[in-house]
Amino acid sequence: MEEVDHLADERSKAQFDVEAMKIVWAGSQQQLDVSERIARLVASDPAFRKDNRTTLSRKDLFKNTLRKAAHAWKRIIELRLSEQEASMLRFYVDEPAFTDLHWCPYSIVSVNCCNGMPVPPEGMPCPMPGDTVDMAAARRPVPCTAVGMPWLVPMWWPGGLGKASTHGVVYARLLVDGKDHGVNGFIVQLRSLDDHSPLPGITVADIGMKFGNGAYNTMDNGVLRFDHVRIPRDQMLMRVSQVTREGKYVQSDVPRQLLYGTMVYVRQTIVADASCALSRAVCIATRYSAVRRQFGSQDGGPETQVIDYKTQQNRLFPLVASAYAYRFVGEWLKWLYTDVTQRLQANDFSTLPEAHACTAGLKSLTTSTTADAIEECRKLCGGHGYLCSSGLPELFAVYVPACTYEGDNVVLLLQVARFLMKTVSQLGSGKQPVGTTAYMGRVEHLLQSCSDVQQAEDWLKPTAILEAFEARAARMSVACARNISKMPSQEEGFAELSSDLVETAVAHCQLIVVHREIETGHTRKGSERTATILCNIYALFLLHKHQGEFLATGAITPKQASLASDQLRVLYAQARPNAIALVDAFNYTDHYLGSVLGRYDGNVYPNLYAKAWEDPLNDTVVPDGYREYIRPMLKQQLRTARL
Amino acid sequence: MEEVDHLADERSKAQFDVEAMKIVWAGSQQQLDVSERIARLVASDPAFRKDNRTTLSRKDLFKNTLRKAAHAWKRIIELRLSEQEASMLRFYVDEPAFTDLHWCPYSIVSVNCCNGMPVPPEGMPCPMPGDTVDMAAARRPVPCTAVGMPWLVPMWWPGGLGKASTHGVVYARLLVDGKDHGVNGFIVQLRSLDDHSPLPGITVADIGMKFGNGAYNTMDNGVLRFDHVRIPRDQMLMRVSQVTREGKYVQSDVPRQLLYGTMVYVRQTIVADASCALSRAVCIATRYSAVRRQFGSQDGGPETQVIDYKTQQNRLFPLVASAYAYRFVGEWLKWLYTDVTQRLQANDFSTLPEAHACTAGLKSLTTSTTADAIEECRKLCGGHGYLCSSGLPELFAVYVPACTYEGDNVVLLLQVARFLMKTVSQLGSGKQPVGTTAYMGRVEHLLQSCSDVQQAEDWLKPTAILEAFEARAARMSVACARNISKMPSQEEGFAELSSDLVETAVAHCQLIVVHREIETGHTRKGSERTATILCNIYALFLLHKHQGEFLATGAITPKQASLASDQLRVLYAQARPNAIALVDAFNYTDHYLGSVLGRYDGNVYPNLYAKAWEDPLNDTVVPDGYREYIRPMLKQQLRTARL
Repeated sequence: MEEVDHLADERSKAQFDVEAMKIVWAGSQQQLDVSERIARLVASDPAFRKDNRTTLSRKDLFKNTLRKAAHAWKRIIELRLSEQEASMLRFYVDEPAFTDLHWCPYSIVSVNCCNGMPVPPEGMPCPMPGDTVDMAAARRPVPCTAVGMPWLVPMWWPGGLGKASTHGVVYARLLVDGKDHGVNGFIVQLRSLDDHSPLPGITVADIGMKFGNGAYNTMDNGVLRFDHVRIPRDQMLMRVSQVTREGKYVQSDVPRQLLYGTMVYVRQTIVADASCALSRAVCIATRYSAVRRQFGSQDGGPETQVIDYKTQQNRLFPLVASAYAYRFVGEWLKWLYTDVTQRLQANDFSTLPEAHACTAGLKSLTTSTTADAIEECRKLCGGHGYLCSSGLPELFAVYVPACTYEGDNVVLLLQVARFLMKTVSQLGSGKQPVGTTAYMGRVEHLLQSCSDVQQAEDWLKPTAILEAFEARAARMSVACARNISKMPSQEEGFAELSSDLVETAVAHCQLIVVHREIETGHTRKGSERTATILCNIYALFLLHKHQGEFLATGAITPKQASLASDQLRVLYAQARPNAIALVDAFNYTDHYLGSVLGRYDGNVYPNLYAKAWEDPLNDTVVPDGYREYIRPMLKQQLRTARL
Repeated sequence: MEEVDHLADERSKAQFDVEAMKIVWAGSQQQLDVSERIARLVASDPAFRKDNRTTLSRKDLFKNTLRKAAHAWKRIIELRLSEQEASMLRFYVDEPAFTDLHWCPYSIVSVNCCNGMPVPPEGMPCPMPGDTVDMAAARRPVPCTAVGMPWLVPMWWPGGLGKASTHGVVYARLLVDGKDHGVNGFIVQLRSLDDHSPLPGITVADIGMKFGNGAYNTMDNGVLRFDHVRIPRDQMLMRVSQVTREGKYVQSDVPRQLLYGTMVYVRQTIVADASCALSRAVCIATRYSAVRRQFGSQDGGPETQVIDYKTQQNRLFPLVASAYAYRFVGEWLKWLYTDVTQRLQANDFSTLPEAHACTAGLKSLTTSTTADAIEECRKLCGGHGYLCSSGLPELFAVYVPACTYEGDNVVLLLQVARFLMKTVSQLGSGKQPVGTTAYMGRVEHLLQSCSDVQQAEDWLKPTAILEAFEARAARMSVACARNISKMPSQEEGFAELSSDLVETAVAHCQLIVVHREIETGHTRKGSERTATILCNIYALFLLHKHQGEFLATGAITPKQASLASDQLRVLYAQARPNAIALVDAFNYTDHYLGSVLGRYDGNVYPNLYAKAWEDPLNDTVVPDGYREYIRPMLKQQLRTARL
């Protein structure tokens, strides 16, 4: 087939160096090289085919994933891939698998964290939660060799638990001689290493179908129940506390704050994942918006490209800008994690609360917006976005759990808000707020200041944007603190005003992203101007979307809000010729995108048509069921038909 | 099994007459009776089982739907159901089927409207669009007996086209002797009535998997291509125009505006559907929020019901209020449709543009919010909302097309905005705006007026709410009109300011809903107080959500916006004890809800556990694929494994 590029015209319009932007997006030339090489490796291997995923039955889908995971590790071993390369491979294979939680080929694949949601046993023949683990062995004197679990509330959700895992890490309340020592971790063998059957007293199963056709149904999220299971004492995870052979509970001097380091790490990867999912969705929607034409034909000429409509730009371009913004803030979080880790190792816990609040907030902000944005991109593709071959329904279904796992997004924002309230309450004490809350140190100024924007172009000044976002966040924080102080108690205040607190936390987190972008945008070699356009679109779009908060706090005036909207339209016009190049810079292969609408060559329609024919329903021209069900209806023989 | 009702306490707290509210929701006692009877009929018939839908393969799923459709019509005939009863049956069977578009048992089941999206033939071996139908027969003299279609651009999306339909209504451009007579309709037979095979020259197929597990994959949305198909002349739809035997094109004197009547009708049903889908989602989320407990345990007592958290109430209660609001506005649209129809029959077209704008806007507003709201309800159920057994993923996937079909929601809002701009431009001419735009007649007052709200309770006055919403909508309209007039041309203005126009249209449509609610709320017998609480929640939540527009237009002050939020919290507290009763009043059976989380008896967890075991993956304890793929990984034999 001859090569076509329906988007060649669009590509020629780009006003920045796409190759340079690819490096910016990838992080470095080295990362770009590895990424390209591994992406090609996956795309060219038929074993990693994924376009049939949505039509497989649950069992076939799962088996197919087992096969891919084994094949992936086989390749990693054969090709002696580095850790970086192996991790890229997993990324491009692009299918949730039981190996994900512990990404290494052998033993650890069988360990699984049972930290899912408990299913309270109401109405079930098992006891109440609360006193889950009975340190049975401790009732006998020495030697203490085993922990008995007479039963355990079933655990739900852990990935890989249902069918694949051989071991689990169970977190449970430890009682020794009736004394409660809180939640501790235990490694428990779940299945036989000979034939994979569950060990005596252990019930384990898959929890059933989840959202989407393929999506997370490739994963065996599981349910687990224990019935009088005993595990050796030395399978307790004993880094922070242990039970001696004599049955005595002893705490180690390892600081528990170390656990927070892991949390910061996990959340940083979630923010990075958000930028991946979002960039993928906007890549599909942007390319298809340039391919698709609708209405507006003049003098019999072609119809208007959908991407030229301002309503489309107003929905799409801020999402492109967000993808870049999240990428950059994700990069910065990597630095933050390194910084926190080094401090923890030096027993310096001073920045931990701020780092914790910052990562919790950014996890919440980026995952919520990304989930919504994927669905928005789907709608931006019109009816065809509803087809699985658009790739967007799958992307949505596989992404949305990010809003719930590793901390529900609303709960996380309330934690951020608590930290902000604490920061406000300490302002008088002379303690200077650090890191992302440093602006609170200038609260007196921020409560008084008026934005000096007088014409639309003034909104291009980084200081104008920053000051408006800082004033909004600071004023909302102070207002919340004031309103809470009027309540009978602080806890009542937190409960009653929790919705205001959530909004305040969002304002603070948006400021963090805007701040990071402004700090780093001009350092994007070869694409400074484009990076600045994106940064301004991101900021001014948020300003318009949340203008209620900017106006209610008096951070800006209605006139200034209106000028921001004017400037936003100018920015859209500047972004327009760069749109395709901006999503090309993500450097995604067609295999990874998995979307007929988002194809690099824009040759959408013949491929959409060809793809339709692959549906199993098209195996026959006359559908299965015609004779039994359709024919009796057409022939008016329903009354006598045996259905 | 003994009967439990975990929600009995909640039900006893209700402060209004649930039975009376059921009648209000159903529309009348008669409708409630029919609805209850048919719901029970469907729920008790094993043929209508739907809980296995998400695990069926595409082919089995489709065949199952054929069976259900045939069974449904068999029952309708056997039981001699009325049209009302038959329509209820279809509603409770709750599965998109090829019979939906033409809901009657025999011949019409085979007709299908080919008005889907065209796939431009770029790169395909078929000509360009534009001159689709060639009136070949007209080139010969008399008698004209057939229309020839040398080819036709493939049509996408029509439901029931792919596998089931025997006939299609094809809309195509009619050329007679090279003269273009615009788009006309033709009935075309697609398949043999003997063996259901496609007729010569006709290619027809299913377009492939769509969003969701079951959802619209029960429907054979199709693609259709013609290759030199000829159809008899008299199969042209000739109500508004015809081609004579002599090949002459003649227009009839039937007014074309009659077509708009159908449009008003269809959109009215879509608004009604929105209230159904939304009420179903909030019923699930509300019940589960009362069942689910998390955190906040005091002195070892039970944890807090999730529904008692203000953040949960702030997300959930406005959606409950929206479900009621849409139900009421949907009822009113039925009246509007009757009114329009009567006027059309009397050749009175004066209210048509306003009715058209009103229904277009409400279609857009209600479907967009409902789609978002279903996903929000899913998130409000935490992790378990992601399970198919929650019912919410399916509900979302099956609902979202409503944002795109029968007019893309953004395109419809732009039509509303055009109507508003026209209304503004005619204000000076003495022509009084009618119906839902009547408030524009008081534009002078609305541009000047200041809200007189001084304390939170003032926001309970219907006049305070109405005036704020009217002022916001009127001021946004006038500002748009003014900004457009500053542009080089009106069309450029419309294009450039289209995002502002969309926001203005939304403001206008929200006003319509608020207005209808205020007008009718107090007439809800036995539940006036509760109806008023819901109405106020709906209005004040919108006011908070869009406070940027209320503030930017000066319709209210920041202080008044803050008072509205205070009042909203009071309203949530008033709604709380009524929450379960409010969703009970929808009177949905567990079969219809299709959700373990939303069960009437609240006995969620044992049933969630039981449901998990039904997944095909749990057919065996050791999964298919263990020996080939998992074992080699565990045994470190990957290198030699044959995968």
